[in-house]
Amino acid sequence: MTTKRVAVIGAGISGLVSVKCCNDEGLIPVCFEQGDEIAGLWNYHDELRDGEGAALYESMITNTSRDMTCFSDFPFPKETSPFMRHERVLEYYRSYADSFGLHQFIALNTKVVKVEPAQHYRKTGQWILHLKKEGQPVKQELFDAVMCCTGVCTTPYTPDFDGLGDFKGLILHSNKFRRGPDFRGKIVVVVGASNSAGDIAAEISRFAKQVYISMRDGTWLLQRMGSGAPLDMTRNRRIYEQLPESVMNMISQKIVLSQVNHDKLGLKSNRPLHRHVVMINDDIANRIFCGAVKCKTAIKQLTRNSVEFVDGTVVDDVDAVVCATGYNLTFPYIDNDIIADGARNIELYFRVFPPRLNKPTLAVIGTVRVSGPAGPVSELQARWATRVFKGECKLPDEETMMTEVKTRKRNFFEKFGKHGVGVSSIPYQDQIAEFIGAKPNFWKLLLTDPKLAYAVMFEPCYPATYRLTGPGVWDKARETIMNARECDRSRTQSYLQLMSLLVVLFCVCFVVVQRV
Amino acid sequence: MTTKRVAVIGAGISGLVSVKCCNDEGLIPVCFEQGDEIAGLWNYHDELRDGEGAALYESMITNTSRDMTCFSDFPFPKETSPFMRHERVLEYYRSYADSFGLHQFIALNTKVVKVEPAQHYRKTGQWILHLKKEGQPVKQELFDAVMCCTGVCTTPYTPDFDGLGDFKGLILHSNKFRRGPDFRGKIVVVVGASNSAGDIAAEISRFAKQVYISMRDGTWLLQRMGSGAPLDMTRNRRIYEQLPESVMNMISQKIVLSQVNHDKLGLKSNRPLHRHVVMINDDIANRIFCGAVKCKTAIKQLTRNSVEFVDGTVVDDVDAVVCATGYNLTFPYIDNDIIADGARNIELYFRVFPPRLNKPTLAVIGTVRVSGPAGPVSELQARWATRVFKGECKLPDEETMMTEVKTRKRNFFEKFGKHGVGVSSIPYQDQIAEFIGAKPNFWKLLLTDPKLAYAVMFEPCYPATYRLTGPGVWDKARETIMNARECDRSRTQSYLQLMSLLVVLFCVCFVVVQRV
Repeated sequence: MTTKRVAVIGAGISGLVSVKCCNDEGLIPVCFEQGDEIAGLWNYHDELRDGEGAALYESMITNTSRDMTCFSDFPFPKETSPFMRHERVLEYYRSYADSFGLHQFIALNTKVVKVEPAQHYRKTGQWILHLKKEGQPVKQELFDAVMCCTGVCTTPYTPDFDGLGDFKGLILHSNKFRRGPDFRGKIVVVVGASNSAGDIAAEISRFAKQVYISMRDGTWLLQRMGSGAPLDMTRNRRIYEQLPESVMNMISQKIVLSQVNHDKLGLKSNRPLHRHVVMINDDIANRIFCGAVKCKTAIKQLTRNSVEFVDGTVVDDVDAVVCATGYNLTFPYIDNDIIADGARNIELYFRVFPPRLNKPTLAVIGTVRVSGPAGPVSELQARWATRVFKGECKLPDEETMMTEVKTRKRNFFEKFGKHGVGVSSIPYQDQIAEFIGAKPNFWKLLLTDPKLAYAVMFEPCYPATYRLTGPGVWDKARETIMNARECDRSRTQSYLQLMSLLVVLFCVCFVVVQRV
Repeated sequence: MTTKRVAVIGAGISGLVSVKCCNDEGLIPVCFEQGDEIAGLWNYHDELRDGEGAALYESMITNTSRDMTCFSDFPFPKETSPFMRHERVLEYYRSYADSFGLHQFIALNTKVVKVEPAQHYRKTGQWILHLKKEGQPVKQELFDAVMCCTGVCTTPYTPDFDGLGDFKGLILHSNKFRRGPDFRGKIVVVVGASNSAGDIAAEISRFAKQVYISMRDGTWLLQRMGSGAPLDMTRNRRIYEQLPESVMNMISQKIVLSQVNHDKLGLKSNRPLHRHVVMINDDIANRIFCGAVKCKTAIKQLTRNSVEFVDGTVVDDVDAVVCATGYNLTFPYIDNDIIADGARNIELYFRVFPPRLNKPTLAVIGTVRVSGPAGPVSELQARWATRVFKGECKLPDEETMMTEVKTRKRNFFEKFGKHGVGVSSIPYQDQIAEFIGAKPNFWKLLLTDPKLAYAVMFEPCYPATYRLTGPGVWDKARETIMNARECDRSRTQSYLQLMSLLVVLFCVCFVVVQRV
């Protein structure tokens, strides 16, 4: 049997890790990147580049922490700060590519204009890629499998406000926002209720005359280090997934509200935390309290130079409206029958495999929004996809896959309404890990390595957790987890440990009662 | 008897309120302002103006709250945000001057070059002012009394670092800092542990390549709204002054440490909170956690382009050192025998009256650093001074005054060491208010107006508290206090009320036990 060649589309985070996973599994990756550099949106540029969706702003810092954001077998150096500026993140991904020798598999400045099943696809599962390099004719190339790693932020979405055409000021999508000082002395309305909206409103407000932030239904404002440790480390622990969602939500809400007075800030939402968009931001509360940012309801309409909100209030002399209103998920290079455009239309088995394909030789990596860092989730998806390509993992039949897709969609809609949010990170990752046999077995660990078992269940779910067992096991995984937990000695720990102990006691009681 | 003419030197905040107090007491104020506008440092300018000490930076916001910062009889409009950008504060002081018709008493562009006792000073207590207007010869004018309102931030202090002369980068005092973007891509060391240092380090770090903050002995980092209500409102309550200082300090430290993890940030100080400088900043923690700001010890020496710290670490390629190292208190226009330069040398009875003067006709307003807003304290000082000028209040003899000065100095030194901090706001204000008969009587209020009594004792000590009784009583003082407390319904309130109740019960028990 010849070694399979896998086309990886895009050399962003998902692309890089897909290339590495192919390589790890003995497949031959060929990665096509339309830009001239790897790591996608982590390259800061003053101007939007051709074909670019999301882009960084100058002051951007991560809202997920070092030890949770890294790939599973490539931790950040210990001296790295808990959160990072974008330059540091870019440095990390570059060093990842260097360390694993990924550059040799990446063709830069090469745009994939079309992906279609090869002639004998039903038999071979192969795909034809139409490749375009600047100044050269389109070239076709045959691959055994394809990984679509073009991400979730491809096509900016700007709402079609009433009176949009009349407005004489600047309308800007957040992907074109770069620097706060560009708005010096201006009156600006920022639209959106999530991370970008918060960051941009806070940043602009340092220079603008006045900033308004327009939100449909408030938001839940979370702080990076609200409980003394990074948010993703306090939140993403396997033990919490054992609690009923409503209980977990109640606890989370209580903690969030004790840190940030949503009422006073005018941010209060009618939906509970676990069913609403969140805004991770340490700055905006202060900007609201000093009057530099004012909260507004949704926009009703624009006129020549003013913005009217649905509560009837009007802001005049508006210089700019910045829409931090997200992106449409699109795959312009592939037929809509294979992967539909739009997050609501897309049908993928566990958000990776199109269920209706005859052969499982095409995977979509990195389009699921999780409650935590995205990189490690893309990595697990890529590990799964490459195991499937290799034939080591099987997918169920079409009907089973379609049932999963439809159930997931229905649940998602019921939970979030039409403005979908994301999935819980740990259950999703655990499920994918289970597919490839990389899910750690808590009970087994409890007998063989109780310290590690404790870390796996009660402490943050570090990416290296999925390198303890199964294919792709990494001999430094245990050490990495233990190192990370050493850095995480936070003042919330005793509280968490107490809580964990109570949960364990509860579980034991429950088991005992059931047996009696 | 003819109406007394009072010279007010400076039309900053202390100057403005002194003018108003003179006017209220039927004295004739003549205010001399060397600049071309009122409200002193609240006027933002891109460049430092001639004779200016402290100056604003573009992004500056208040760290004291609206209802605590206002003058006692001139509250902010209800819709003002709890904290404010500097433009809003300037607007407020301008509107104060307009409302009370203060402009007629203010001579702009007039510098006071010298103040000296008039010929028959020992009999009349009069002073000669030497006044200089641009392009005109120095003119002398006689006054019955003088109020020195030139503030505490007159002469920038820059430490004399070893190797200062060798350093080829920029050395900048914080009074010349204006905008973060000026430091784009640079490596900057900010020196200082208080508010300005925090603000400037955080601001620059949004643009700089790397910022270091150098502190002699860490700092105590406080958040503007850490407990859900403005810091000065949660802290400055009369009830807390009834508790022993050590107990209050223990509680405060516990609250501060629960909000900000000083250890993790590298800010931890060896001195307790009530004996150390504080940094009110909501931003710097986040800037440290993302690695944009790194904490360092004191500077050992500078070399050509690097900075060595006392812990032996060195930062190379430093482009700028910004010294947020405060100001020397100076009075260049008056003889050092009357008011000595330097906060440690100055000898003033309750920080207002030089005790050795034969006649109490000279007062220094607004040079005391308190744990809270400075404006209302200056106002009380000015009310006291004008009552003294008028002869309605008497000062004790020189010996008594000198004893107060020396005791205060000794206590201050024992408490803070040579790097003095400030005095507790409420006891100081209560003492001055008592001199003029404006201190509210809690027990009397308890019988006549228990709601107000509760507010006065257990709720924030709003400036209007000192307009409830005595000279300068204001008929809207009660309403203002009640309005302010309505806006202060914070989530900490129930906790505070519970605590207050416990204290009351304790007091009652104490009294009962003593009587038995």
